[in-house]
This record gives sequence, C-alpha cells and structure tokens, in this order.
Amino acid sequence: MNFSCDLLEKAFDRYHKIILSIGNTTRRALHNRGYSSQSHNELRTTTIHQASRSWRSDSNWAGYLETVKVELKAPCENLPHLSMDEEYTIVIDDFGAVLSSFSIWGMLRALESFSQMVVLSDDGSMLRVNATTIDDGPRFSHRGLLVDTSRHFIDTCTLVKILDGMAYNKLNVFHWHIVDDHSFPYESKAFPELSAKGAYHPSMVYTQQDIQMIIEEARLRGIRVMSEFDTPGHTRSWGVSHPELLTECYDQYRGKLGPMDPTRESTYTFLSNLFREVIEVFPDQYVHLGGDEVGFECWASNPNVLEYMKQNRLYSFEMLEEKFIQRIVDQIDVLNRSSLVWQEVYVNGVRLPKGTVVHVWTGNRQDLLNRITRDGLPALLSSCWYLDHLSTGGDWRKFYNCDPHDFIGTGQQKSLVLGGEACMWSEVVNGHNILPRIFPRVSATAEKLWSPASVNSADEAARRLEEQTCRMNHRGIPAQPPNGPGFCI
Amino acid sequence: MNFSCDLLEKAFDRYHKIILSIGNTTRRALHNRGYSSQSHNELRTTTIHQASRSWRSDSNWAGYLETVKVELKAPCENLPHLSMDEEYTIVIDDFGAVLSSFSIWGMLRALESFSQMVVLSDDGSMLRVNATTIDDGPRFSHRGLLVDTSRHFIDTCTLVKILDGMAYNKLNVFHWHIVDDHSFPYESKAFPELSAKGAYHPSMVYTQQDIQMIIEEARLRGIRVMSEFDTPGHTRSWGVSHPELLTECYDQYRGKLGPMDPTRESTYTFLSNLFREVIEVFPDQYVHLGGDEVGFECWASNPNVLEYMKQNRLYSFEMLEEKFIQRIVDQIDVLNRSSLVWQEVYVNGVRLPKGTVVHVWTGNRQDLLNRITRDGLPALLSSCWYLDHLSTGGDWRKFYNCDPHDFIGTGQQKSLVLGGEACMWSEVVNGHNILPRIFPRVSATAEKLWSPASVNSADEAARRLEEQTCRMNHRGIPAQPPNGPGFCI
Repeated sequence: MNFSCDLLEKAFDRYHKIILSIGNTTRRALHNRGYSSQSHNELRTTTIHQASRSWRSDSNWAGYLETVKVELKAPCENLPHLSMDEEYTIVIDDFGAVLSSFSIWGMLRALESFSQMVVLSDDGSMLRVNATTIDDGPRFSHRGLLVDTSRHFIDTCTLVKILDGMAYNKLNVFHWHIVDDHSFPYESKAFPELSAKGAYHPSMVYTQQDIQMIIEEARLRGIRVMSEFDTPGHTRSWGVSHPELLTECYDQYRGKLGPMDPTRESTYTFLSNLFREVIEVFPDQYVHLGGDEVGFECWASNPNVLEYMKQNRLYSFEMLEEKFIQRIVDQIDVLNRSSLVWQEVYVNGVRLPKGTVVHVWTGNRQDLLNRITRDGLPALLSSCWYLDHLSTGGDWRKFYNCDPHDFIGTGQQKSLVLGGEACMWSEVVNGHNILPRIFPRVSATAEKLWSPASVNSADEAARRLEEQTCRMNHRGIPAQPPNGPGFCI
Repeated sequence: MNFSCDLLEKAFDRYHKIILSIGNTTRRALHNRGYSSQSHNELRTTTIHQASRSWRSDSNWAGYLETVKVELKAPCENLPHLSMDEEYTIVIDDFGAVLSSFSIWGMLRALESFSQMVVLSDDGSMLRVNATTIDDGPRFSHRGLLVDTSRHFIDTCTLVKILDGMAYNKLNVFHWHIVDDHSFPYESKAFPELSAKGAYHPSMVYTQQDIQMIIEEARLRGIRVMSEFDTPGHTRSWGVSHPELLTECYDQYRGKLGPMDPTRESTYTFLSNLFREVIEVFPDQYVHLGGDEVGFECWASNPNVLEYMKQNRLYSFEMLEEKFIQRIVDQIDVLNRSSLVWQEVYVNGVRLPKGTVVHVWTGNRQDLLNRITRDGLPALLSSCWYLDHLSTGGDWRKFYNCDPHDFIGTGQQKSLVLGGEACMWSEVVNGHNILPRIFPRVSATAEKLWSPASVNSADEAARRLEEQTCRMNHRGIPAQPPNGPGFCI
C-alpha cells in the first residue's frame, strides 16, 4: 500500500521543476551566443553532431524512463524530528525507476538523490539517468546549520534560499540563532517591545508570520527549525526594552548592563513566559538555551550580586551561572521539551536532565566529546565547522577531515554523538554574501554527517563538490567555486 | 566660459538618479513594514514627529539648495589617461552649490563627491547637504583594480557593476587580466580560434562588442581599461588552438606544453600581429605585458631550446626569458605604446624603454620600490592589496596601512611611484561572489591612493568605510560588511 500527503505532493512539485530545468542554463547559454560568431556556431554544430552519433551507437542504452514509481510505505509524519527515519531505496533498471521508503523523510531524501542522478546528455537534447540500485540512509541524525540573524539581519527570502541549499545537501536542522547582543529581531507576541526596541530597524524584524513561513518551508524539506534564545550572556539587545533583566554594572563598568541578573525572581518569570511562547511558536522538541561566553566582570562589580552569592553559598561565578542555567533548563524540562546547551554549561557542572544535548564548539573537542558522552549525555559537534573562519584558498578539506566520532570512547559513547552543525556566525555576513559563504563549504560538513565513515577521501569529495556546486548554481544558489579555476555550464 | 560634452551629460544622468534615490531603500523599508505591527507604527510616527520638530528649530538651516552650478573650465578630453587632471573644487554656501574643475575627469570626481555629501534627513522627508568648501585631488595618478577573467569567467553585467563600484571609490584603472592559463575569453579578430577553442565555453567569451561596451562604460566613469596579455608563462589556454606557440616539453614532462617557445621566429610574428590588434581594441596608452612566474623546467627539458641558448650565448633561463620579453617590449615600443611588466622582468634585467612601468607584487616591496625608482623607472604597487587573500574577521586595515611611499628613497624616486592596484585573482571567485569580495575591501586601497598621506587613521577610516558600504549597497553594489555587526537602512 502506498501513502501520500501534502509533504509528498509539494516535494513532487519542487523536484518536477528541478528535474525539468536541468540543462536549461546550458541550453540558454548556447542559445544566447548562437549568433555571436562564426566560430562558435561551428563549434556548436560539431558538438551536437558528434553527440548524436555517439548516442545512436551507445551500447549502454536500456530504454526510455517514462515514469518514476514512488512507494511511500507508511503514513506521513507531520513534523521532522531528531529520530526521524531518513532511509530510502532507489532502484533503476530496465523496468523503470522505483523510489521507496518507510518514511516521508526518507522519501524526501530519495527525491533529492534521484534529482541528482539525472544528467543532461552531452548534446543537450535529453536527460539521462544510469541504471543503479541505492540503499541509503544517514550516519548521524542531527545534521545542522546554525544561522546567526542577530549580528546582521538576514531577510526571509535569503533564509528560504538557505533552506533550499540545506535540502540539496540533505541537512536536516536549521539552528536559528535568532537573537543575540546586537539585535533582537524576533517579534514576540507576549513582549512585542523586545523587537520594537531591540531590533536594528522596524524592517529588520521576523514577524510571527515570517517565522511560521520559515518553519513551514523547512518542514516541507524535512528540516527541523531549532530556535536559540541565548542566555544569560549575549543578551544586550534584550536590555533595550527590558533593562531590568540585565545586571547593572558598577565601578569601572558603571552605566553599562551586563549578563542577565540571576538574583531577581522577575528575570526567571520573564524567561518562563517567553519560553512558554517560544515552544508554542517553534514546534521542535528541542530548544537551544545557549549559555556560552558569559563575562563575569559585571557580576563581580555588582554588590547585590555578590551579596546574593554569599547568601546562597555560591563560591564562584561559574556556580552562579550554573544556578541561573539550572533554572532555565528546569523550566524547559517542565514544559516537556528538551534542551541543548553550549559546552560551558556542562563544563560548569550544571545538573542536566537526561537527554540534554551538549554542543561542543571550542577547545579540545576529542576530550570534551569523551567526557560528555562518558557522563551519558548526547553531544553535538561544531568546533571544526565555523563558516565564519576564513583562509586563503579555501578550507572545505579541513571541514571534511573532521569526524565527530574521532575521539577515544566506547561504542556506547559514540552512539551518543548525535551529529553536528556548521555555524554561520554573522559578524561579517549579511544578505549580500551569506549564500556564497555557506555554499558549497557546508556541503563538506553535510557529506561528513551523512555518509559512512569509510567515505573519507577528500580528493574524491573534491570532484563531487565541484559537481554539487554547479548543481546548486543551476538551482539558484550562488555557491562559490570550491576548488579553484573552472566553470559551470 | 563653461564647456560640456557627452561624458558630462551622461554623468549628470547617472548622478541625478543616484541623488534622487538616496533614501529610497529606507523609505521602502519603512513602508513595507508599515502594517506589520502596532508597535512599529508607533515607533515610526514618533520618529517623524520628533524629526519635524527638530527641523523647524534647526539653527543651521541656511536655505533650500535649488540648483547646482557645474563649471567645467576646459573642453572635455575624450579618453582618460595616466596624467589626466582629476582635481576639482566644491563650494556650498548660502548662495548655492558650485562644482568646478579644469578637466572633465576632475568634474566626474566632483560629482561623485557631491553625491556623497547629500544625506537623507532623519525623518526621511528630505535631502540635506552641509555648507562646505572642498579643494580636492588625488595623491596618486594610477589607482587600479586588477580583475582576472581567465580562472573564472566574469559576465559583462558584473564587470559593469565593478566599474560602477570603482567610480564610487574614485578608482581610475581597470586592469583587465583577460587571459591566462585556464581560459582565453578574449575574442580576437585576427585569431578567432584563440577563444573558440581556448575559452571555457562558447558562452564564456568577451566579443569585440562586449569589450567596446566595457571600455565605453569605463570611459564614461573616467576609468582607463588596461589590458594584460600575459606572456611567456600563463599561456596554457593559447596552446589549445596554437600549440606551436608553446614549448614542447621532454623527459618527465613529455606530452605537456610549457611557456611560449622563445626560439621560434613565428612566436614573435604571431604576438606582433595580436598586439597590433590589441592596441587598436584597447585605446589606452599602456599595455600590461605580464612576464611573471615563468617556470623553467619545460624549457630545460627541450633540446632545441638548450641548443638555441648555446648558440645565442644565453647562460641562464632568466637570460632566455629576458630575450623573449625584450622582443615583446620592443614590439610595443615600436607601436608607440607604453608597457607595464610584472617585477620579474625588471629583476631579470630586461632593458626597459624609458617609462616602462614595473609592477611590484611580491617579496620585499620596500627594497624593490627603492631599486626600481633608483633606476629611474616608474613603479606600481600591488603586494599588499591581494583581494584573493582572506583572513578571519577581515583585512582592510592591513590594506589601509600599506603606503606606496613607505620605502627609503629621494623625493625624485617617490615621484616615480605612480600608485597601485588591488588585485582580484579569480581562483575562487566568479560572478556569484566577486562583488562582495572586492567591495568594500578595495575602498581601503582606493582611499590610500587618493587621500593625502596625512589621512592615515584606520579608526577614522572604519567609520567612513561603514558609511561607504551602505552607500554602495543603496546603489546596487552588494558590498559586504566591513567591520562587524551592524546594518544599513
């Protein structure tokens, strides 16, 4: 029995367009220059002629592929989730093509793979696909891309392009680092003043409608949207409308506001109300709570904070931070959602509910992954996939050679590594350059997270990456050249 | 008496559009979000209201600027050239605005400056300009940008955008590194087979019509187009149609072709014919002859080359290279054009005709600039402005802190430094990412080459660069963020 649903129908629409447009760029390019000079016409004619001859005599020809059978063997789930089944099978032989999966998510991946198997014939006159059998599924279940929309605002059209590009690379988590120190573009229903005052500009706000659109576009592509509202640091923009949330600094920092004020009950009430809204708006099971890079100098300057620490027997700022994050983690726990936290939270010794994911981003990743998983906590790796780090001549090989299982630990420990995320921190990217900065570099991370550990030759990946870059270009993603001189037609 | 010409009329059109569109983005941004939420409407109303009040009580208000007088005090020249006069004066006072120059090129710079002085009032309701007097001119006469269109093809629309961006930064030389090893996109009239076979693809060719368009668009902006046909190395793509031009390699390199074959008279005849065409197509006085990075291993493997060296008493490959370049330089000299060469040609001891410009790109730049100018030759600096070099967090300050006069030498020597060029080698850029990679980083080079040596505070430049980036964005150049988090409205 075959199942279907809106997810599948809409995927058909997308891939139908994609497959039919294969070769459009090439044909257009040839056509536009058809008149340009004698020599080009000659060249073109020659190419077509040669190709036609080779086609007639091609001993590999097996027949025309008239239809593609799609066998979805279980009802659709509505929302992608951490343990969704993304496995699928493709069989193409003399009898036709069959795509099958027990899950809509696997079927989406199958359609992506099938669309990549269709190529333009040399003479540009038809589409070809090789006979083959594919039995495929991902190695890691969390394959993400973090996008920071606070340091620079990224318009929703660009975000949808990013989702498109993610789908073309079978990434499945859009980690939306939506607010931070610099701006608060999330339009809250409960606290609209947060973005009204904390956004860069009234035009640089994600309305509830925008967010629903992004979540829906992601869902259609089998991509989870995981929001991050980072606390207690990285919250300067919250203070524009709610200065009482932040710690007043004293002494040399007088007049400034520091991290959230962990001594006031009102801070926790506010956050509880906000997170109640956030879990309604973002349906994913996981909420990223941040917890990274908390500067202690402001807390250290504030007499109330010091008094509070004394009364509560907190002997270090790490302990104070722990106390704060503990409350937030518990709030999410009570709401029946799961948390992710940056590694500092774990390192500082916060008691994390079972299943809280620790996100590793700096320091000795092998050691951290070993410790976190030894403590029975799931882990996520980002350290080696910072897309904002740049080096002359490119760096995707460095990305490609980083494996989340590359640490000493038992099989049990390894199984606690859920995957990883490439991070696009936006200090120096905005809508003008974020797409070529992400693509195709993130493809290296994506392949590492999808393919078996045995697929690890960077030289072979280089060729695939070249092809994948041209493919993304044809589909409207301005991916930059990965390897050096060359061209896409 | 006032003069005019098509250059001036067309500049009026461009700057008229630019000035009238100042604030369009902002107004559109506000308008688009006008309905989005209560709080935004409130914010907007408040802003306008406050601004209107402050406007009425502004004691600096001096009157409406109804017309701008443009006084071009000499007839237009037709083509920009190395010693063109780019000085101009702007006076804005109670009586109006007057832009004056003795040269159309100075007037183009004046219009650019004036367009940058007009700003949107805080409430978005009108344009403002401050009263001021400006007496301005460039420090260096050669302020260039090299664009490599061989390693990746760059479409002509993007090239025109680059010219636009250059004009916004008062750059005046487009150094078109048009062919190289990887592809030969220049469509020659005399040798159409060069691009027919040597281009990446028939659609990736600059036709004569394309080239004339680029030269004209550059001319309108007071930008010279200086072509480079690099020899004897960097010529692999020439060999696709004319293998006889290149040296046949022997021994371990058998089957490969090396640099141009300096032993055959036919090589020089071919080049003479090509350069005869090139100086017709590109009207600039200067032709860049390349001469960089010649690998000697192929020459060393070829018995004919070795025999030729013996017969001609050439005791090193440098001497052989010298002999080759000498012929090419002499060819250009005979055609009454001037040459530029990369530093290797000078270092190898080629006798250069008076006025041949030596282009410094690597090694100890202070030492080289000293030696070259001590020998009485003009010099051009690029070493510190390689736009293809990348570093995390940006590098424009490094660009900004490099000064072409920063070497030990007499005043006479300093005066031989014509200026410099930022270089956009295209190993990893194509139409998808070249614009944000060039802009605004090249603005740092542009300011260094235009402004007096005393203008050298990178911190002050940082603020200007932020403003200039937003300005370029408004004018359609996707310049990337220069300094970190922020936004343009």
